[in-house]
Amino acid sequence: MAEAGDGLVDLRSDTVTKPTPAMCRAMADAEVGDDVYGEDPLVNELEERVAALFGHEAAMFVPSGTMGNQIGMRLVCQPGQEVLGDAEAHVVTYEMGAAAAVFGLSTRTVVSEGGVLSADQLIAQVRPFGNWHLTPTAAVAVENTHNRAGGLVQPLAELEKLWAWSRDAGVAVHLDGARIWNAAVASGVPLDTYGRLADTASVCLSKGLGAPVGSVLVASAERIAEARLWRKRLGGGMRQVGVLAAAGRHALDHHVERLADDHARARTLAERLGVDPATVHTNMVVLDGVAAPMLAAAAKAQGVLVSEVSATRVRLLTHLDVDDAAVDRAAEVISGLL
Amino acid sequence: MAEAGDGLVDLRSDTVTKPTPAMCRAMADAEVGDDVYGEDPLVNELEERVAALFGHEAAMFVPSGTMGNQIGMRLVCQPGQEVLGDAEAHVVTYEMGAAAAVFGLSTRTVVSEGGVLSADQLIAQVRPFGNWHLTPTAAVAVENTHNRAGGLVQPLAELEKLWAWSRDAGVAVHLDGARIWNAAVASGVPLDTYGRLADTASVCLSKGLGAPVGSVLVASAERIAEARLWRKRLGGGMRQVGVLAAAGRHALDHHVERLADDHARARTLAERLGVDPATVHTNMVVLDGVAAPMLAAAAKAQGVLVSEVSATRVRLLTHLDVDDAAVDRAAEVISGLL
Amino acid sequence: MAEAGDGLVDLRSDTVTKPTPAMCRAMADAEVGDDVYGEDPLVNELEERVAALFGHEAAMFVPSGTMGNQIGMRLVCQPGQEVLGDAEAHVVTYEMGAAAAVFGLSTRTVVSEGGVLSADQLIAQVRPFGNWHLTPTAAVAVENTHNRAGGLVQPLAELEKLWAWSRDAGVAVHLDGARIWNAAVASGVPLDTYGRLADTASVCLSKGLGAPVGSVLVASAERIAEARLWRKRLGGGMRQVGVLAAAGRHALDHHVERLADDHARARTLAERLGVDPATVHTNMVVLDGVAAPMLAAAAKAQGVLVSEVSATRVRLLTHLDVDDAAVDRAAEVISGLL
Amino acid sequence: MAEAGDGLVDLRSDTVTKPTPAMCRAMADAEVGDDVYGEDPLVNELEERVAALFGHEAAMFVPSGTMGNQIGMRLVCQPGQEVLGDAEAHVVTYEMGAAAAVFGLSTRTVVSEGGVLSADQLIAQVRPFGNWHLTPTAAVAVENTHNRAGGLVQPLAELEKLWAWSRDAGVAVHLDGARIWNAAVASGVPLDTYGRLADTASVCLSKGLGAPVGSVLVASAERIAEARLWRKRLGGGMRQVGVLAAAGRHALDHHVERLADDHARARTLAERLGVDPATVHTNMVVLDGVAAPMLAAAAKAQGVLVSEVSATRVRLLTHLDVDDAAVDRAAEVISGLL
Repeated sequence: MAEAGDGLVDLRSDTVTKPTPAMCRAMADAEVGDDVYGEDPLVNELEERVAALFGHEAAMFVPSGTMGNQIGMRLVCQPGQEVLGDAEAHVVTYEMGAAAAVFGLSTRTVVSEGGVLSADQLIAQVRPFGNWHLTPTAAVAVENTHNRAGGLVQPLAELEKLWAWSRDAGVAVHLDGARIWNAAVASGVPLDTYGRLADTASVCLSKGLGAPVGSVLVASAERIAEARLWRKRLGGGMRQVGVLAAAGRHALDHHVERLADDHARARTLAERLGVDPATVHTNMVVLDGVAAPMLAAAAKAQGVLVSEVSATRVRLLTHLDVDDAAVDRAAEVISGLL
Repeated sequence: MAEAGDGLVDLRSDTVTKPTPAMCRAMADAEVGDDVYGEDPLVNELEERVAALFGHEAAMFVPSGTMGNQIGMRLVCQPGQEVLGDAEAHVVTYEMGAAAAVFGLSTRTVVSEGGVLSADQLIAQVRPFGNWHLTPTAAVAVENTHNRAGGLVQPLAELEKLWAWSRDAGVAVHLDGARIWNAAVASGVPLDTYGRLADTASVCLSKGLGAPVGSVLVASAERIAEARLWRKRLGGGMRQVGVLAAAGRHALDHHVERLADDHARARTLAERLGVDPATVHTNMVVLDGVAAPMLAAAAKAQGVLVSEVSATRVRLLTHLDVDDAAVDRAAEVISGLL
Repeated sequence: MAEAGDGLVDLRSDTVTKPTPAMCRAMADAEVGDDVYGEDPLVNELEERVAALFGHEAAMFVPSGTMGNQIGMRLVCQPGQEVLGDAEAHVVTYEMGAAAAVFGLSTRTVVSEGGVLSADQLIAQVRPFGNWHLTPTAAVAVENTHNRAGGLVQPLAELEKLWAWSRDAGVAVHLDGARIWNAAVASGVPLDTYGRLADTASVCLSKGLGAPVGSVLVASAERIAEARLWRKRLGGGMRQVGVLAAAGRHALDHHVERLADDHARARTLAERLGVDPATVHTNMVVLDGVAAPMLAAAAKAQGVLVSEVSATRVRLLTHLDVDDAAVDRAAEVISGLL
Repeated sequence: MAEAGDGLVDLRSDTVTKPTPAMCRAMADAEVGDDVYGEDPLVNELEERVAALFGHEAAMFVPSGTMGNQIGMRLVCQPGQEVLGDAEAHVVTYEMGAAAAVFGLSTRTVVSEGGVLSADQLIAQVRPFGNWHLTPTAAVAVENTHNRAGGLVQPLAELEKLWAWSRDAGVAVHLDGARIWNAAVASGVPLDTYGRLADTASVCLSKGLGAPVGSVLVASAERIAEARLWRKRLGGGMRQVGVLAAAGRHALDHHVERLADDHARARTLAERLGVDPATVHTNMVVLDGVAAPMLAAAAKAQGVLVSEVSATRVRLLTHLDVDDAAVDRAAEVISGLL
């Protein structure tokens, strides 16, 4: 629903979506089993489907994108080695130090131009195995779309260049594909093209796709077998997960292509707010140079929730629960305040 | 439902229960929010309710009992210190080495008499702080009911003795209360009495209570604040968790007192199989001295699933999906095979 | 020197030995280099020599037996897997929880008959890979001589049985050979026989052999290459280590065969104290059933230092700094107190 | 000795120094004890002396600067929190990922202007506690002198500014003082002034001071007590450490003030090689824009060893084993090659 009964338009994130009535019915009707025994048919089906979508052998359902990313990186990086990523990458910056705390992995970052992946820049920073002091770089992490960079779609040519280099260099690539669906819809690049340019990838069912809970980690069959052990250790092994997998299946069936609507609404919103539409890559609108706390408070008082990214930056996201009327209302409220 | 459409009677575990139609409706009708923002009303309500049930200040929803136990132990034990528990305790033996692998905690075990907690035995094994070689014992873990000991209810007097000692000794107590509900129903001891004899406790909504997914960790408010950071790091932070919390609320409303039925059916089953009813403490029946693999296979061929605990031991659990007819059928099949 | 200038006879441990004048000269005359560059000739020579002594490809100098043991176990056990050992084994009980805290390894113990290795007992406790809950047993640790068991020499037949089994089972064997020199001298079993019954072994230069600092880890060349990375991470990489390696070389040249004298003196001491000489396996005498704190204090007042193992057990060790006169004096003092 | 018997002039690092004859005598004559029992008098004396030199309560001898740094950071940073440092700082870049692998600490870096500490730059990058996604910054690491920045002495005013800020911010400061002696001699700032601007500091006896092995960690008495547990876990607890402490005492007695000679020789060398003497801060000379591998190989062929820092940068260090004649010879050889 675009506006909840409480009349709010919530543009803080696409994580706030609530399951649609149809999705709720799918969950209620789910035929479930005990996934710890591998007997939940919907989970098995969902894992096979997502693996196939991304051109990988196998997949594993996890309760969050953080678990998908962290296990994904652990599969390709050992304690004492490092993962290299963008300074604003979710996996190295916004997951509470998990890589080091839970798995003993070092992380290191490069400051990119606006979050745009530059294969050359990353490659130049990779540290070799075999030095007696330097932490060797075992993996590079890529985020697509890049959340903190405003929903940016990474250039396919850079992804391909990084991948080709990585095969010779013996360095793995992990894809944080929390919003890979938005990237594919916006760019027209097939999901499996993106998938084949990564050794491990975590994709979320709970953001633009609107499922209440759940992400999926894809990789080779051998790596997913090891991932299941780590999921167990981390406490991510659940029982009748089919209730969540049913929501995921419904999301894949009904909520992928419609992301184009979110993208169109984001562009509309940008235009209404005088933001350069060229900066709207997918479903995010970034307002720079504003008094963020004041703007957020004032908008909230009028029923529009936005996200303060910094003191001078506000972020607006469109999603399943934001329809045309909600965009209209948000545009009115915010342009009135600017 | 006692027998699923596939005609199976599944006595392997009480984890195999499927959500009832009423529980499914509760999930479908759940008013949800984004729990990462702390805005899921059902989660907040559930956490407050479970904290109060066990006489603690605060609680946190987690996707599994393993996560509840491991974070619970981490709250009271630092890397390089040890948790002492029963040799058959789930937290030290059946959680895939998580304590050491994820948190750097040592675990050590004592071999008890049939799983029955002996405060004296544990106290005698505790190792002091301040020795230059010995790993100090920071916490003792108690399991109630004790799963591998056949659903045993721990003696209240021993729990009280351990607790009283622990206050002076500066050693914490963690309760693995995956099936504490069964203990309370069988013994008549109130939940909050059990709760007040532990610093941290993990209780499951997904076993006897029949929820599809979810456990709750209870502790002091300060410890739960720290627990939320660890849940985030482990990837247990989820979004519209209300769909699961709704099932949990329904379970608390409707499925606690009825555990007495499971216990009665377990006794009936024991009698029908010639097992001493005195060995049936709650919802588990243990068959010893049988050819377990053969028995399990033969029973399965007749539609009755049982759990092989060892080469000569089989375990049968009653639960929400096992009614009188199912017990009757299981008794017939298995006694025919014995 | 048997008795230091301070007139004490120190029987607390064989770790208290002070470098002999000849050993000090060897250290002062050492031709050294920077071992981080692999340029310390004495270290290189010592590592090759010790590897050869134990029938292994390679070896690495470490500052302590704890570092040798812990890295040795890490080479054959991954985070989330377990090492199985005797309940009184130094590596699992007296190294301050290092295996879990530093490396994420679980440890588990069996209570043996007086510390005597029983291959059958250990094998029965090994847990398989491939179970979804159980921590798999990746390695078994053996201690020879067994310190807490009174300097016990492990039966060669049991070591051979364990080793033969382990090859089929895919389980590694780590030898804590802190006092393997005493075992070899007492049993007549060659060092390389013991060495070939282990995947990794840590042997100490600083106990019976009398070097001031240093142990050596032996293993395959591939494993030692990995061990060097871990030594670096743990801060065990040192510079002009030749000053220590010179002491180690001197110890190997001059202090191995003379361990027989320590063993003879231990037997003499036992006889003088009315202790059954059959309980003296190498260089340790154990007094059981004594008021340990009182005895230790009273002996100290007369210049004889002993070790309190428990409230009723005292331990006496002979070593390089204990000559016949010192044994005589200790026997007089202690028998006078008993 | 300036030139070893092999006729080499080794300018690769100040870690290559060999103990002088007088230092060797001090080691040979050392009165030692068992430091695990706290009975090595020279170690106790050395620890007290170094603590006092830096204005701290307590100190602990460790086998390497890496162990001193890593334990020092662990004392002020918990698993899941981060240490912030310069991109070229030894503790975060050249210690093989130890912080994450061994202790679960995240590390993050800023790219400074030539390695010069800027308090404002670091402060701007610090991340707060209390955010649900960001890894909080618990400590800032400072390196003085800064090795990779050419032996740079950090500006006292910046150290003071950082310290003053850190007290309010609740962020700790760790000093990697591997070459703090060079900083003090070059700047005239007393050691205890530097020491009082840090919560924990690791200082090395084995670089410019010429001891063969050893570093010292200084901190509060409470932190050093905890540090001793970590040293034990890491395998850094040694026995008759007095043989090393004797070298350390000799170094403190005789090799601190003479660092001024190393600095003068480094300036002479720079002048002879046409390097701007203003870039020589202490005992390092950096040649930029050279064909490093070729230069290093050619110089080696003529008996002068230099360090390749990158493809176009070579580093020369003066130290205890480099006298005027050695500088002269090195200047001749290298200027001939340039």
